[in-house]
Amino acid sequence: MLGGTGNMGQGLALRWARNHEIIIGSREARKGTKVAEEYLAKARAFYGDAMKGTIRGTSNFEAAAQADVIVLTISHEYATSTILSIKDRLKPSQIIVSPVVPMVKVDKGVMYSPIVESGEVMSYAEALAKELKGVPVVAAYHTISAKKLADPTLVLNYDIPIAGDHEGAVKVVMELTREIRNLRPIYVGPLRSALMIEALTPLIINASIYSKIKDASIAFVQ
Amino acid sequence: MLGGTGNMGQGLALRWARNHEIIIGSREARKGTKVAEEYLAKARAFYGDAMKGTIRGTSNFEAAAQADVIVLTISHEYATSTILSIKDRLKPSQIIVSPVVPMVKVDKGVMYSPIVESGEVMSYAEALAKELKGVPVVAAYHTISAKKLADPTLVLNYDIPIAGDHEGAVKVVMELTREIRNLRPIYVGPLRSALMIEALTPLIINASIYSKIKDASIAFVQ
Repeated sequence: MLGGTGNMGQGLALRWARNHEIIIGSREARKGTKVAEEYLAKARAFYGDAMKGTIRGTSNFEAAAQADVIVLTISHEYATSTILSIKDRLKPSQIIVSPVVPMVKVDKGVMYSPIVESGEVMSYAEALAKELKGVPVVAAYHTISAKKLADPTLVLNYDIPIAGDHEGAVKVVMELTREIRNLRPIYVGPLRSALMIEALTPLIINASIYSKIKDASIAFVQ
Repeated sequence: MLGGTGNMGQGLALRWARNHEIIIGSREARKGTKVAEEYLAKARAFYGDAMKGTIRGTSNFEAAAQADVIVLTISHEYATSTILSIKDRLKPSQIIVSPVVPMVKVDKGVMYSPIVESGEVMSYAEALAKELKGVPVVAAYHTISAKKLADPTLVLNYDIPIAGDHEGAVKVVMELTREIRNLRPIYVGPLRSALMIEALTPLIINASIYSKIKDASIAFVQ
């Protein structure tokens, strides 16, 4: 988890620590280590003897070099500088998971602000894949309420739209998603579909602001 | 209902005919009239004596002049030419409801293709409002399964995100939405929020293509 010291990082760490070795990255290694210790204590209290994984902390730089799956649990504001600082460490065998959404504040709410390049509209995830040539990028987790995710006692009945071009990487992220109780991963196509997924985050935020639908996520209804 | 001879037009006509006077517009008045007669027979069979509204058909041109609320139940492909053909008839006291979504076919699926003007990304609904200066535009009904809507015996447990700048017009569309059993209108902000709503249509289509989630809509989950 790069920038894993917020709610999103805590949530994924606690939910995956049962079975996986989690690394919390932070701009400062010391902060990463400290926060990871707190998460580890919470995870142990929650899972007891059933816990097979671990949680440890370090710098974003070290975390990016060591992880099999790198989740950008970081706001858009800091995502690009973080990526640029670690990109030379990445290998094509790793997987980058991007829940990052470029947004701007307007009126009382927020607005999706995708990248425009020579008149073409592009998601953050696609721009990231272009930048990280060869490292598989999977778009996922844009719609999870970080606040609810952070509390492992809460069951999340959400659908998680997932987009990606790399079949193996998508499969790994689908499996990781299924490990979180009641989350249902929904593959919605190649990475260009990330445009439609990223738009969900400001939609959910605006539903909260204008219609008091608090800490919501989405589900497909048939 | 402009171009109201498809599933979407049938669905809204049947669901609203209980209480409202419905006009089915078509490029050819004769086709509008013929289809409206079919819908009227269906509505009468469904509502029996409880039916207080009517359904009649005419050309898009006449329908646009007569209606209080104009719904663009028409695909993106034909929406702009239809709008241009009727725009001189419109008055600021009318309301235009746009479920229109510009999409392009890519890979196996579809892709949201918003309007780009001088580097700015804009929804179809916003471009429409610019074109129809002064006539209130409300973005709604992008996520309804037209196939399910068309069968008035089906109950639709959907959330309907709605965006618009004009308070009175939004209120009317919220009320009309509540008249359809179990639909929950969710106001998500000014018309610029339509960008995030329009993106839902290709997302739902791609979930259907890649993950076999058929005829789905969306709901906010708390």
